[in-house]
Amino acid sequence: MKTTHTPAFAALRRGRQNLIAAALVCALALATTVARATADPLASWNDGAVKKSIVDFVAKVTKEDSPDFVPAAERIATFDNDGTLWCEKPMPIQLFFALDRVKELAPQHPEWKEKEPFASLLKGDVKAAMAGGEHALLEIVMATHTGMTVGEFEKMVQDWIATAKHPKFKQPFTKMVYQPMVELLAYLRANGFKTFIVSGGGIEFMRPWTEGVYGIPPEQVVGSSGKTKYEMRDGKPVLVKLAEVNFIDDKEGKPVGINQHIGRKPVLSAGNVFSGGDIAMLTYCQSHPGATLQLMVNHDDAAREFAYAEPDDASLKAAAANGWMVVNMKNDWKQIFAFEK
Amino acid sequence: MKTTHTPAFAALRRGRQNLIAAALVCALALATTVARATADPLASWNDGAVKKSIVDFVAKVTKEDSPDFVPAAERIATFDNDGTLWCEKPMPIQLFFALDRVKELAPQHPEWKEKEPFASLLKGDVKAAMAGGEHALLEIVMATHTGMTVGEFEKMVQDWIATAKHPKFKQPFTKMVYQPMVELLAYLRANGFKTFIVSGGGIEFMRPWTEGVYGIPPEQVVGSSGKTKYEMRDGKPVLVKLAEVNFIDDKEGKPVGINQHIGRKPVLSAGNVFSGGDIAMLTYCQSHPGATLQLMVNHDDAAREFAYAEPDDASLKAAAANGWMVVNMKNDWKQIFAFEK
Repeated sequence: MKTTHTPAFAALRRGRQNLIAAALVCALALATTVARATADPLASWNDGAVKKSIVDFVAKVTKEDSPDFVPAAERIATFDNDGTLWCEKPMPIQLFFALDRVKELAPQHPEWKEKEPFASLLKGDVKAAMAGGEHALLEIVMATHTGMTVGEFEKMVQDWIATAKHPKFKQPFTKMVYQPMVELLAYLRANGFKTFIVSGGGIEFMRPWTEGVYGIPPEQVVGSSGKTKYEMRDGKPVLVKLAEVNFIDDKEGKPVGINQHIGRKPVLSAGNVFSGGDIAMLTYCQSHPGATLQLMVNHDDAAREFAYAEPDDASLKAAAANGWMVVNMKNDWKQIFAFEK
Repeated sequence: MKTTHTPAFAALRRGRQNLIAAALVCALALATTVARATADPLASWNDGAVKKSIVDFVAKVTKEDSPDFVPAAERIATFDNDGTLWCEKPMPIQLFFALDRVKELAPQHPEWKEKEPFASLLKGDVKAAMAGGEHALLEIVMATHTGMTVGEFEKMVQDWIATAKHPKFKQPFTKMVYQPMVELLAYLRANGFKTFIVSGGGIEFMRPWTEGVYGIPPEQVVGSSGKTKYEMRDGKPVLVKLAEVNFIDDKEGKPVGINQHIGRKPVLSAGNVFSGGDIAMLTYCQSHPGATLQLMVNHDDAAREFAYAEPDDASLKAAAANGWMVVNMKNDWKQIFAFEK
């Protein structure tokens, strides 16, 4: 057949190419469907009440003829980060970053040798440095997280997280994520959920790596933040990080942050036992009309991770009072980290 | 054949049901592909330099072997709302809402009869009320947009927008959206873009209707906002809208808002000529490394909409200096509103 390059023919040919492309996509979709029928998407979870509650919840909110059906657009799931998606001991990972930044900046700040909390930090005594509480923490964050542009800070985080390691496990921090939660995030997305992080940690500390590690893009990360200022430098627009708090995304701040960024109540929320920081978020989630699910991770596995509790047990008491599922790492998780043998 | 209800058989049957479902999805996808090959997704745009720039841009950033290819996750498009996606004359639509709220609340505020800007508003003299500038506007917003819960405010907006009409066109405000822009939003999404609103308007005024009207879900709406406070009322968590500004998403605030909510630079941004409110956003978009596209809507069609310009022509000057595409409504848009004959 002789090819005639008329516009009509070209359109026809494009149409046929589209058909072939669509057919290929379909073949792939069929193959994936078959594969999915056999593999357990939550393989790192032990069978039990918690795993069952997750699978049952997802089944009932995704089945169109279920009384609990939730349209895909409303399937919002929010996850705390520190202690819920990754390890937060012996201290939150962002503090390791801040500590390394303090050491790096120390030569430019001779006054830090005498000034708390920097003096203690530089001696390696984190506990003494943190004796100043929230004020000390804020001083450290302001000294290490501001003054540069947003782009420069992003690069600092990327460079640091590519090499820094956890002191106990000797693993890069990006490997300190909980495998069962990584599976849960992917399982929810495969069922039409949008997964968000809602963390007390710094929004700009998380965004450079959450997409690669959790599959959560920057626009689905909610966190604490400082103010920024738009200005032109050498004819290019930049955002400069100011030494001024914009928003603290913790405790009662979490529902505020969720409303600000997402504008919908989540139907699934997960937090962890440590500071009571997720009680308000899980309460807010549960007030969504219709079926909801709340997960509260309990760190009870000293052998494979760390065992720790809250002095007042507020999170576990709230879980018991409200019917939230407590995820006991020891029994509910077959594997905690992907690097485990 | 006798059916035996063993678990293995049930799994097989589920597998077969999944296959049938997948096959149906595929048939639909093929049909859609064929239909799409014929219809123009930008039918309300006249052929010309602007339409061509859009189609060319989308082609080059979505083609994997193009030097300008942008991965789907980074295809962020940000749109101003007032004057870019919908009509902003004779005044921004949110002001019509505020005005109706002032009338509704007036019986509870006898002092407003003597107090500006309320006194002028109640006499129907919007111009005199606005003589107080930003301060007057803030007073009106605080009086009409705060004191209730986020849920109560959402309901007020829904109820109002279901019935209120544009004074000139006698159409519901949700019909005052520009058909070419609605097509552009859908076209971008069909090509893997995530579409966001980035507006000086109130975030909570827009979210109740943007999904239905533009296909933009609440979590992809960025706007100005007041602070909220989390509290328990009758055992239920609520967010109360406080009379305190949280963020003004206009001018230099737009890149700040984009960074705060999205955490990525857009590759496509659209704004309009009126107040210079979108210059910073388009400048910020253009600083994204790689191919970008900026659109500046120019209101030059007094017959079909309104004709208006900026006193200092800052937006058009910026467009000329930076190579942004100016969308002249008169020539570039075949149809402005869907209700036009």
